[in-house]
Amino acid sequence: MRRLEVKASRSYEVLIGEGILEEAGARLKEVASPKKTAIITDDRVRELYGDIVEKSLRDAGFETENYVFKNGEASKTMETLWDILEFLAKKGLTRSDMVIALGGGVPGDVAGFAAASYQRGIKFMQIPTTFLAAIDSSVGGKTGVDLKAGKNLAGAFWQPSLVLCDHRTLDTLPDVTFSDGVAEGIKYGILSSESLFESFETGGFRENMEETIFECVSIKKRLVAEDERDNGRRQLLNLGHTFGHAIEKLSSFEITHGHAVAAGTAIAARVAKKLGLTGDGEVLRIRECLEKNNLPTGTDMELKDIAEAALSDKKRRGDRITLILPEAIGSCRLYPVDKSELPGLLEGCLR
Amino acid sequence: MRRLEVKASRSYEVLIGEGILEEAGARLKEVASPKKTAIITDDRVRELYGDIVEKSLRDAGFETENYVFKNGEASKTMETLWDILEFLAKKGLTRSDMVIALGGGVPGDVAGFAAASYQRGIKFMQIPTTFLAAIDSSVGGKTGVDLKAGKNLAGAFWQPSLVLCDHRTLDTLPDVTFSDGVAEGIKYGILSSESLFESFETGGFRENMEETIFECVSIKKRLVAEDERDNGRRQLLNLGHTFGHAIEKLSSFEITHGHAVAAGTAIAARVAKKLGLTGDGEVLRIRECLEKNNLPTGTDMELKDIAEAALSDKKRRGDRITLILPEAIGSCRLYPVDKSELPGLLEGCLR
Repeated sequence: MRRLEVKASRSYEVLIGEGILEEAGARLKEVASPKKTAIITDDRVRELYGDIVEKSLRDAGFETENYVFKNGEASKTMETLWDILEFLAKKGLTRSDMVIALGGGVPGDVAGFAAASYQRGIKFMQIPTTFLAAIDSSVGGKTGVDLKAGKNLAGAFWQPSLVLCDHRTLDTLPDVTFSDGVAEGIKYGILSSESLFESFETGGFRENMEETIFECVSIKKRLVAEDERDNGRRQLLNLGHTFGHAIEKLSSFEITHGHAVAAGTAIAARVAKKLGLTGDGEVLRIRECLEKNNLPTGTDMELKDIAEAALSDKKRRGDRITLILPEAIGSCRLYPVDKSELPGLLEGCLR
Repeated sequence: MRRLEVKASRSYEVLIGEGILEEAGARLKEVASPKKTAIITDDRVRELYGDIVEKSLRDAGFETENYVFKNGEASKTMETLWDILEFLAKKGLTRSDMVIALGGGVPGDVAGFAAASYQRGIKFMQIPTTFLAAIDSSVGGKTGVDLKAGKNLAGAFWQPSLVLCDHRTLDTLPDVTFSDGVAEGIKYGILSSESLFESFETGGFRENMEETIFECVSIKKRLVAEDERDNGRRQLLNLGHTFGHAIEKLSSFEITHGHAVAAGTAIAARVAKKLGLTGDGEVLRIRECLEKNNLPTGTDMELKDIAEAALSDKKRRGDRITLILPEAIGSCRLYPVDKSELPGLLEGCLR
C-alpha cells in the first residue's frame, strides 16, 4: 500500500492499495467518528462495490444509508444535488455525520458538492473506482455539478477527510472509461514527469498501477498544496481542459471527459508549437503517445464553435483566459491571452 | 457613518450610514474591480432601491445584470438558487465578476449561496435593506436556502467582500418586518450588552439606528472572528433560534423569522430558569421587553411537535443538541443536552 498526505485547508491522507475497499470502515474509523454515513454512488458502481463498502462500514460500527443515481454525466446536475440534499435531511444526517462518495468522477463531484452544501458543510470520504477519479477528481477538493450552460459551473472547494483508492476496481472498467484515466495520466507526465510520460508511451504504466496512481497523485497534491483555490499554479492541471471541456460540451457529452482532454492536450501542444514555446518533436511525441493509447488527437468540430465554447469555460476571468501550454515533456506554463486572440491561435491547430 | 472590520477567512468592512446606497458603486470600487455585476434582489426591494443601486454601479463603471425573484421566504429554495446560477452563466459572469445581494435576509442568503457556488465561488457584496439583515444575516458569511425538510439546510460559509448598510432603508419596512429585526436586536442585548437591551426596553434604540446597528454588528463580528464556522462560541448567536426555527417551520413560515426567534428566546429564558441558570427577574424582563416591542413570548403549539422539529434543526450533532440559555441580561451560555432530555426540559416552558 502507498500513502500520501495532501496538505490543504483540510489535510488528509490518500491510501492506494489492493483490498482497501474491504477496510473502508476501519480506515474511516481512524480519522473520523460519524454515527451515520450516506453512501452516494451510481447504479453501476453500487452493483459492483456497494455491498462491500456498506458491509465494511457497518462492521466498523457505522450506520449506513444509500443513495443511488443513474450512471453517467447526465446525472451530474443541480437536480441530483437537490435530491441528495433532501435525502440527507430525510435520513436525519447531522453536522457530525458523513457522506461517502463511491465511484468515478460523477459520484465524487456531486456527492462532494452535497457534502459541502448540506448544513453548510459536513465531512466526506472519497472512494474512487475509476482511473480518472483515482488520479484526479478524488483529490484536491474540487466538487460540483454541470449547469445547462456548461460543465462544472456550480460547485465548491471542499476537501475530503480521506481518500481510499483500491486499484483492483480499475480491472472492471470498460475500455473507454479506463482510457479516460490514461488521458489524465499522460497529462501529468507532460506537466511534470518525463518518466511518467514514458510509461504511457511504452504501456509500462499498466505493470504497476499502484505506483502509477501514486506518481500522478504526488504531482497533483504538490500543486493543490501550493494553490488550493486554483488562482495560480494549480491551473496547470487544466492542461487540455479548456479545449477539452469545449469539445465535451459541443458533443453533448457523447465524447467522454478523458477523450476530450486528450484531444485538448494535443491541440494545446500544437498551439504551443505555433507560438514557438515548444518544438515539433514534443508535438509528435504527445500525438503518438495519445494514439498508442487509443485516444483522440484532435477534433473535426468548427473552430468558431470551439473558441466560443472555450470562452464560456469557467477558466475565463473577465476578458482574459489562461491557456496551459507545454514547453517540454515534463514542463508546462500558464499563458494568459485576451479572448479576442483565441480564434487566431487555434487556426490550424484543431487537428 | 460608522465603519467596522470583520475578521474572518476573508476580512471585510461593514459601512453603516445614510446615503450609502447612492455610493454603492464608488464604495465597491475601493475594494474590488469586477467588470460585470449581477444585482440579485426581490420584486419589492427592486422597486424601492433597485434603480438607485444600479445607477450607482453603472456610474462607477460596472456593467450590471438584474435578477429579480418574488419577495418572501417561499423564494429561498434550491429552485431559485439553480435559476440564479443558470442566469449568471447565461449572462457570462466569470470568476472575476461579482454578485450584489440587495435586500433582506432572503436575497442575502440565496444570492450569497449563489456567489459561493457559481464557478466554485465568486465575490459578492451585501446591501441589507431590512433591520434583520443589517444586524444579522448580512454579516458573518452564512448563506443558504431552505430544503423541503427544513430551514437553511443547504448553504455555504462564504464571506462577502463588503457590506453596505444604508439605514434609511429601514424607514420603508412594514411594522412586522421591522419587529423581526428588533427581535434579533434584543437577542444581542441578552447575549452581551445590558445597555443595548435597555435601549429596546425603553424604545431608545430608535433614536439612533446607526449606533444600534453598529452595536449589534460589533457583537456579531467578535463571535464570527472567534469561531467563523460555528463550532464553538458563534453558536451563542443561535439564542432563540433552535425553538424559533421549530416554530417557524411548524407554522409553514406564516410566523416570520424574528417573531419566531422572539418566542424562542422567551422559551429559552424559561428553560434556563427551570434549570436554575437564571432567575425570575430575567425571565420577566425578557418577556416584558418582547411584549413592549409587539413580539410574541411563547407558542400554543404542541410540545412534542416543537421538540421534534427542534431536533431536526441543523444544530443537532448526532444525539446531542446545544441549547443557548441566558444566565443574565448580557450573558448566555452553551448548554448541550441529549436529545432525549429535550421534551422534559420544554415541559411548562412553551408559554
